[in-house]
Amino acid sequence: MATELKNLTKRSDNYSQWYNELVVKADLAEPSAVRGCMVIKPYGYAIWEKMQHTLDTMFKSTGVQNAYFPLLIPKSFLCREAEHVEGFAKECAVVTHYRLKNDPDGKGVIVDPEAKLEEELIVRPTSETIIWGTYKNWIQSYRDLPLLINQWANVMRWEMRTRMFLRTSEFLWQEGHCAHATAEENEARTVLMINTYADFAEKYMAMPVIKGVKTANERFAGALNTYTIEAMMQDGKALQAGTSHNLGQNFAKAFDVTFVNKDNQPEYVWANSWGVSTRLMGALIMIHSDDNGLVLPPHLAPIQVVIVPIYKNDEQRDLISKTVLPIVDRLRSLGISVKFDDADNRRPGFKFAEYELKGIPVRLAIGPRDIENGTVEIMRRDTLEKSIGKLEGIENTVAALLEEIQTNIYQKALKQRQDMMRTVDTYEEFKKEIEKGGFILAHWDGTTETEEKVKNETKATIRCIPLDGDKTPGKCMVTGKPSAQRVIFARNY
Amino acid sequence: MATELKNLTKRSDNYSQWYNELVVKADLAEPSAVRGCMVIKPYGYAIWEKMQHTLDTMFKSTGVQNAYFPLLIPKSFLCREAEHVEGFAKECAVVTHYRLKNDPDGKGVIVDPEAKLEEELIVRPTSETIIWGTYKNWIQSYRDLPLLINQWANVMRWEMRTRMFLRTSEFLWQEGHCAHATAEENEARTVLMINTYADFAEKYMAMPVIKGVKTANERFAGALNTYTIEAMMQDGKALQAGTSHNLGQNFAKAFDVTFVNKDNQPEYVWANSWGVSTRLMGALIMIHSDDNGLVLPPHLAPIQVVIVPIYKNDEQRDLISKTVLPIVDRLRSLGISVKFDDADNRRPGFKFAEYELKGIPVRLAIGPRDIENGTVEIMRRDTLEKSIGKLEGIENTVAALLEEIQTNIYQKALKQRQDMMRTVDTYEEFKKEIEKGGFILAHWDGTTETEEKVKNETKATIRCIPLDGDKTPGKCMVTGKPSAQRVIFARNY
Repeated sequence: MATELKNLTKRSDNYSQWYNELVVKADLAEPSAVRGCMVIKPYGYAIWEKMQHTLDTMFKSTGVQNAYFPLLIPKSFLCREAEHVEGFAKECAVVTHYRLKNDPDGKGVIVDPEAKLEEELIVRPTSETIIWGTYKNWIQSYRDLPLLINQWANVMRWEMRTRMFLRTSEFLWQEGHCAHATAEENEARTVLMINTYADFAEKYMAMPVIKGVKTANERFAGALNTYTIEAMMQDGKALQAGTSHNLGQNFAKAFDVTFVNKDNQPEYVWANSWGVSTRLMGALIMIHSDDNGLVLPPHLAPIQVVIVPIYKNDEQRDLISKTVLPIVDRLRSLGISVKFDDADNRRPGFKFAEYELKGIPVRLAIGPRDIENGTVEIMRRDTLEKSIGKLEGIENTVAALLEEIQTNIYQKALKQRQDMMRTVDTYEEFKKEIEKGGFILAHWDGTTETEEKVKNETKATIRCIPLDGDKTPGKCMVTGKPSAQRVIFARNY
Repeated sequence: MATELKNLTKRSDNYSQWYNELVVKADLAEPSAVRGCMVIKPYGYAIWEKMQHTLDTMFKSTGVQNAYFPLLIPKSFLCREAEHVEGFAKECAVVTHYRLKNDPDGKGVIVDPEAKLEEELIVRPTSETIIWGTYKNWIQSYRDLPLLINQWANVMRWEMRTRMFLRTSEFLWQEGHCAHATAEENEARTVLMINTYADFAEKYMAMPVIKGVKTANERFAGALNTYTIEAMMQDGKALQAGTSHNLGQNFAKAFDVTFVNKDNQPEYVWANSWGVSTRLMGALIMIHSDDNGLVLPPHLAPIQVVIVPIYKNDEQRDLISKTVLPIVDRLRSLGISVKFDDADNRRPGFKFAEYELKGIPVRLAIGPRDIENGTVEIMRRDTLEKSIGKLEGIENTVAALLEEIQTNIYQKALKQRQDMMRTVDTYEEFKKEIEKGGFILAHWDGTTETEEKVKNETKATIRCIPLDGDKTPGKCMVTGKPSAQRVIFARNY
C-alpha cells in the first residue's frame, strides 16, 4: 500500500488519471466485467451510506415518504410524454426475452427464442413514466395531495464514455416525485428540494455550490424548468451535483392524472421530480483530495479518527492499549467513529500511508513516551499538519478539530472557486479565459443558437442562470443583444 | 375506507383472497403495469425499511460490510458453475439491445436492430457469479480473509405465477457473500447467519421459526448445504423465510479464486451466501393479521401508537391538544413512534377503522370527559381489547403494553404452530393428515425418489431436516427403510 501510494499520479501531471487511480487505490470502486458498470467497494459504499442516511433524514423532515416502483418500464410508457422521449431514453438497456435454455448445439445457455416478450421492457433510466402511470390510481381528490414520494434505486443509461462514479451505465440514486394541487405549491417544492441539496452539499460534503436555473437547452426532457446546483472541481471544471425539475402538468396530461378540487372541479395535477446520484461520490472525491490521496469531510467520513499505537514489544503494546481503549469509548460517546488499529502485521508507517490515502480526517499516534508524558501526536489530514496534544480531554480536542477540518476544507474549496470565477465582457476575452478553466460570468442573449455556438466553438456550456448575485442587465458577449443578467459558462464533467 | 374494510374477505372464507385484499387495502403494495412486478407503497415500504435497518445493524455487528455489484450479469458467467446454472437462471430477464430509436414507420419508438449486444446480459436473479468473478481480484492471501460482504439490491426471476410480496418477478432483498480460509470457519459463518435470521424473525417479526437443513433436492443450486428457517402461516402452510448456503469451494473453483495460506501454499477459498427478501413482508402480513386487517408487531410497526381526539367543537379540540402534545413528546422520548391524528375531515369511527386495518399496535382515544377524569381509552390491536388507563404516566403504560403485544402475538403464533404440528408414522395416515394442513413430523429414507413421490402424491414437500428436537432414528413412512430422524413435511408458499 505504501508503495502503491507513491505511484499515485499528481494532479498537476494528469488530473483525470489522478482521479481514476485514486478511486481504485483508496478502495472506493473498481470497473466490473460488465461494460460501463462499476463495483462499489465497501469503503466507497460506506461513504454512500452516510450520504444516503443524511439525505433520507433531510427528505423525511420535509414530509417525504419512500416507496418502490418497478425496475422495468414498458416501452410504450416512454412515448407517452412527447418531450420526455424526445430528449431522453434512446440509449438504454432493453429486455426482449424472459428465458434462457441449454444450448442444443453445445455447452452453455442460449436465449430461448420462444420466450420473446410481446412488448419490450426498458431498464429504467428514470421513473417519471412508470410513477405517473401509478399516480393515476392514487390521486382522485385534493385530499390526496400533496403526494410526496421518494425512491432509492438503481437506474441505467447506456453511456458510451464512462468514468467511475461520474458517469456509469448503472448508477445508484434517489428520485423524488411529488404531486401538487397548485402551480404555486409545485414551484415551492421544486425550490425547496434544490435548497435541500445545496444545504447537504455545503454542510456535509463541504462543497460550495451555486444554485441556478438551467437554460431551455439543458433542461430535463419534459420539464418546464430545471433547478441545478453546480460545483467547481479543482481543475476548474463544473460538475452538476443535483437537479430539481418543475414538470408543470406535462406528465399529468400524458398519463391523465386529474384530481377534483375543493370546488368539485377536475384539474390536472402539478408535478416535480428531483434527484442526486452516486455522481456525488465523484464530486466528493475530486473537490477536496490531494496528491497524497483522499481528503474526506468529517461529516461524511465512515471513520473519523484512527488511532495507531507505536510499540516495540508486547509489553508496550499492552500499556498503550490500556490507555487507548477508554479514549475510544469516550470518542464514541461523543458520536465520533473511531478505529483503533493495533494490527500486528503492518508497520506504523504503512498504516499512516494507508489512512492518508483513505482520507481519515484525524490520526492519533501514541507511543510509550507519550503515555509517560500524557501526550499524543495528532495529524490532521486536510493540511497534513502534526501537533502534540494532551491525552487528558483528547476527545474534546478531536471533536473540535473535526469541526475545524470540516470548515477549513469548505473554505478552501470556496476560495478556489472564487479565485477561478471571473467576469468577462467580450467573446474574444471569453475564448482566452475559458482555456484557463473556472466559472466565467458573461452576458448571453437567451437564445439556444448563441448557446450552441459558444459550445461548439469553446466546449463551454451554460451551467446555470444563477439565482443569487448580480442581476444587472447587459449585452450578450456574442451577439450584442440584450441580456437580462450574467450566466455561468464553464467546461464540465 | 370504513366501507372498504367491511369488504375484507374473511380468512375462513378464502385465506388466499383475504391476503391479496389485505395487501392492497392496508396500502402495503399493489400490482404494477409490468407483469409480475409490484409497487411497494409508502406504508409497506416503511415496514420494509424497519426490517432493513434492523437486519443491517445485526449483520454489521458480526463484521459484515455493505457493497454494490452490477445489476446485469454477462450470460457466460451463469454457466461457469455447472450445478448453479442447471438448477437456476433459466427464467430470467434478458437484455439483448442497448438503444431505442424513433419508429420510421410511425409514432413511438422501436428497438434499434443495430444496437444488439455481442453477449446478452441477464438481470441478476442472484449475484454469486458476478461477485465471485470480482473476488478473484480481491483475494490473494489469507490476510484478505475472511471477506464478509452484503448487498441490498433488487433481483429478478421471471415467475409465472406471482403473488405480492410472496413471489414477484422483481423483488428486493439482501444477499451476503462471504469468503473464508477454512471449511470450519465457512460452516460457522453459514450457521451464524441462519441463527441471525432466526433471531430477527422471532424477536422483531414475532414469528416462530424452525431451523433446519434442506434436502439435496431443495438445496440452492451449487450449494453443499442449505440452512433454512421455516415458519407456519395461519392456514397451516409453510413459508421459507430465509436461507444460508454453504457453497464449499464450488464457486471458488468455477471462478478460480485461490489464496496463499500461512504455509505459503495456494488453496481454493471457501464460500457461503445468505439472503432474505421482501417475501418476509408476506410472512409478516400473513402470520399475525386477522379479519379486521393487519396486526403488526410493535418492534416493526412504523407507527406504534396513534392518538385520536374525540371532540365536538374547536374549544374541546384545543383542550385535548393541550393535554395530548406533551404526551406525544414523552412517548417519543421513550423511542416510541406516535401519530396524533387531529385531522378535521374524518370522523373518529373512520379513523379507528383505518388504524385497525393498518395494524397500529396501540390506539389511544381521548375526549373532554377523559381530560376531566385524567383518563384515556386504550385499545390494543392484537386482541382488540379496550381498557381505561390513567393519563398520568400513560407513556409507561404504553411502553409496557407494546412489549406485552410483541410477546403475545409471538406466543399466539407459536401455539398455533404447536397445535398444527404432529407426528405421523404411516403414509396412509400422512395422506389424511396433510389435508388438514400444518407441519407433519415423519420418518423419511433420505432419498430424492421418496421425497418426489410424496410431493407428487400429496403436494407436500420436505421443508427441512430440523436442527433441534427429537433425533431418534426410525423407519421411512413410505418405504420402511431406515431413517436418521424425523423431517418436517408441509404444503408451502
